[in-house]
Amino acid sequence: MGEVITDARALSELLQAELLGDGSTPILRLGTLEHADAQTLSFLANPKYRAQLDTSAAGCVIVAPAWRDAVVGRRAALLHSDPYLAFARLTQWWAQQVRPPRLPGIHPSAVVEPGAVVHATAQVGPMAYVGAHARIDAHASLGPHVVVEAGAQVGEGTQLRARVVLGEACRIGRQGLVHAGAVIGADGFGFAPEAGRWTKIEQLGAVRIDDHVEIGANTCVDRGALEDTVLEEGVKLDNLIQIGHNVKVGAHTAMAGCVGIAGSARIGRHCTLGGGAIILGHLELADHVHISAATVVSRSILKPGQYSGVFPFDDNASWEKNAATLRQLHALRDRIRALEKRVP
Amino acid sequence: MGEVITDARALSELLQAELLGDGSTPILRLGTLEHADAQTLSFLANPKYRAQLDTSAAGCVIVAPAWRDAVVGRRAALLHSDPYLAFARLTQWWAQQVRPPRLPGIHPSAVVEPGAVVHATAQVGPMAYVGAHARIDAHASLGPHVVVEAGAQVGEGTQLRARVVLGEACRIGRQGLVHAGAVIGADGFGFAPEAGRWTKIEQLGAVRIDDHVEIGANTCVDRGALEDTVLEEGVKLDNLIQIGHNVKVGAHTAMAGCVGIAGSARIGRHCTLGGGAIILGHLELADHVHISAATVVSRSILKPGQYSGVFPFDDNASWEKNAATLRQLHALRDRIRALEKRVP
Amino acid sequence: MGEVITDARALSELLQAELLGDGSTPILRLGTLEHADAQTLSFLANPKYRAQLDTSAAGCVIVAPAWRDAVVGRRAALLHSDPYLAFARLTQWWAQQVRPPRLPGIHPSAVVEPGAVVHATAQVGPMAYVGAHARIDAHASLGPHVVVEAGAQVGEGTQLRARVVLGEACRIGRQGLVHAGAVIGADGFGFAPEAGRWTKIEQLGAVRIDDHVEIGANTCVDRGALEDTVLEEGVKLDNLIQIGHNVKVGAHTAMAGCVGIAGSARIGRHCTLGGGAIILGHLELADHVHISAATVVSRSILKPGQYSGVFPFDDNASWEKNAATLRQLHALRDRIRALEKRVP
Repeated sequence: MGEVITDARALSELLQAELLGDGSTPILRLGTLEHADAQTLSFLANPKYRAQLDTSAAGCVIVAPAWRDAVVGRRAALLHSDPYLAFARLTQWWAQQVRPPRLPGIHPSAVVEPGAVVHATAQVGPMAYVGAHARIDAHASLGPHVVVEAGAQVGEGTQLRARVVLGEACRIGRQGLVHAGAVIGADGFGFAPEAGRWTKIEQLGAVRIDDHVEIGANTCVDRGALEDTVLEEGVKLDNLIQIGHNVKVGAHTAMAGCVGIAGSARIGRHCTLGGGAIILGHLELADHVHISAATVVSRSILKPGQYSGVFPFDDNASWEKNAATLRQLHALRDRIRALEKRVP
Repeated sequence: MGEVITDARALSELLQAELLGDGSTPILRLGTLEHADAQTLSFLANPKYRAQLDTSAAGCVIVAPAWRDAVVGRRAALLHSDPYLAFARLTQWWAQQVRPPRLPGIHPSAVVEPGAVVHATAQVGPMAYVGAHARIDAHASLGPHVVVEAGAQVGEGTQLRARVVLGEACRIGRQGLVHAGAVIGADGFGFAPEAGRWTKIEQLGAVRIDDHVEIGANTCVDRGALEDTVLEEGVKLDNLIQIGHNVKVGAHTAMAGCVGIAGSARIGRHCTLGGGAIILGHLELADHVHISAATVVSRSILKPGQYSGVFPFDDNASWEKNAATLRQLHALRDRIRALEKRVP
Repeated sequence: MGEVITDARALSELLQAELLGDGSTPILRLGTLEHADAQTLSFLANPKYRAQLDTSAAGCVIVAPAWRDAVVGRRAALLHSDPYLAFARLTQWWAQQVRPPRLPGIHPSAVVEPGAVVHATAQVGPMAYVGAHARIDAHASLGPHVVVEAGAQVGEGTQLRARVVLGEACRIGRQGLVHAGAVIGADGFGFAPEAGRWTKIEQLGAVRIDDHVEIGANTCVDRGALEDTVLEEGVKLDNLIQIGHNVKVGAHTAMAGCVGIAGSARIGRHCTLGGGAIILGHLELADHVHISAATVVSRSILKPGQYSGVFPFDDNASWEKNAATLRQLHALRDRIRALEKRVP
């Protein structure tokens, strides 16, 4: 990676943030409050880390205007109404400075089948494979070992990192980012029982992914049985997530790692799912539903809100006693009822 | 993909289903009742979707004979004793029509080591790798970037999709299907503790997969420590499943996504495991055991039946109250006992 | 694989174990007590399998000195203070005998970018990719389709199996082993909310993995947002594990399959995490903390010990009754309180 040399004034202009202190404070790196030095720019977004502000050696920090007093003595500070967002934007600018530009062109070791259309500004990496009649749009980038199967489409500016698989006839829109090892368009899991055996239901749909979608490493999005599995605009999926066939995920919904969404579920817009959450098949989640980590959703949720369902952990001995008693809970309820009848 | 043009009569013959109405009704696509048009064939298997039958525009539907009256006014319908199975068979026929045939031969970009035996009718895809003394049988197909390591075997007609890894000396039988990114034959997780460190137990077994097995995307099946890990005939595994070393999965057992089976577990025949279920190590599940999604099985199950164990989710505030109380459950039981002694 | 022909005496010397019986007993294979024959060496470590010792046909067994009497009648036996550890060491020696040596050199189908440094004794497998300024140290081995991105480093003797991805600027130390499909250095999952959309926080850190670390198939270790995600010396990760950005895992900690560690968690040294356990973000686990399988850890654990939190499974009907009652648990507690007030 390259290096960045800038200063507090330049960044205040970039972020449209109010500059306090010495605008010539040099900024050579971004970092946490805890590990910052005099040439580090840091930020404070979560009040929980307020104490670190006072002890941090950061040359410059981004804080909310309400904390103006807390940064008065610093060499430099930037005031922004949303420090976390300002920092996010700064990381984007920073990445642009330090990362080598993607060079257009098809690597000589790549295999591009006849009928595929690769835009002149797109990048096809080492040993990537582009199937017949696939389409790679302008400024798109396929990393090493990416597989884009026949008839699939990659939208403008979208990056598929190392060895992503985009299955036959699947489409991803513009400005997307798919991390290494993700598999888009494997067969959904569908079988009809037949005399103790399973008869495969061929999966004839595909996957449609809209613009600005990010998909994590080794995550799987299955193709639909008849219609397409759909991820709408702005959906963000972390690593090792399973999206079953025919699922529809609404715009701007985000899921943390290890989530599983069973087939034909309909997830609303602006939802969040914590890590390891499981949504059973054919359910519906309304917009703005938030599921806590590791919660198993076994019926539809039609009302926005936060939902949870996790066994509280404990030291093992305490857990064992409570868990054993839990298996008698229904009987305990009956005993309470009986007591209530007997007590005047 | 290609296109299909057929009609209701042809499909009634194909499926050995009774034709009602106009046999010349054109069928150009398969679809759900909800999104069907006049040239769509659909089906009704689950009574839950009965209402959709009346409003569906489907030109032809497959239903059970019991619902003959419900389809009398339609342009065409097919009566079959098992509509879901009939539909499954139809998808297979349909897929054969629309998918391009696999062409035999070794892609020039593939690497095949000396001593490997690739049948003349097999297909070795772009940039696939076949190790020394591996064997690829007739009509088998290796997708792009597949890795078949030394001494491994792929049975007749089996397909390994893009970048599947079949490890050293592992074998898969006939008519199998392994989806992109699956890893068969990584080392099992075995270490002996030694003064606070872990000493590796080399995994000297392999994986044996019988005929008609389907394995999902990014699923892992580890090699055995001494003997082979075994998936018997007709086993179906969804995506992102972990099968530990020495596990044996009985014939025709099916597992949904994100299941984890710890080492040396013995799973019976004709079992089903819901998504995210976990089976601890060295346990045994009898034949015809059915585990609900996200259930953790912590002891052997020797009796067929349905087993469950999931914390019921709730709105967050209710869950918090109940979860907190759960940590006192054993004490609550004691209080009930005390009350029972005090109440005459 | 090759073959091994040895005998009980040779192995007693190798393992520094006391030999009982006939030192010339031939040993051609290693196996479980259950499936052993007269030329098999087996071991007994877990007293649970004691009964198998009497019926096993194994030509030679490794047992603890305390069980000397139980093996007196056998053709041969080896006494070792830690039979499991002795067996582990034996598997390592055995593997060395049967596995073909890794040959140094860069496979002609591999792509190595200018500026990369590959040691003359290292192995770069078929169709592997080594990015600019990456460094592959002595005796390291990259399997088929491995991707080592720009500036990444692979330490001495470390093996990356088939199609591992080691992301830009990520480093793994000496004598490590990474199984097929693992992705090290994908972006951490970080977004700032902005008017109902997600603004990406570019992940500017990397991953640092110390010596003697093993990582399972399709496991993901994300790069840090600002600083590095760290796996210390001797960490062992099973398959399909998710390690979020900025996580630090202490030395010699081991995690079974399907574990998820959310971002910025700090896991101590010498911890164990059972399969499917989930650790929420920003938490801290002290050294020597042991988490049972499938337990969700929702607050920091500062005291060593075993912790659990799993809903006990049951036959479905019983579970349903208890789970339904659980949703009224807080109210039940109030009813018990009321009873206690009313009962003298």
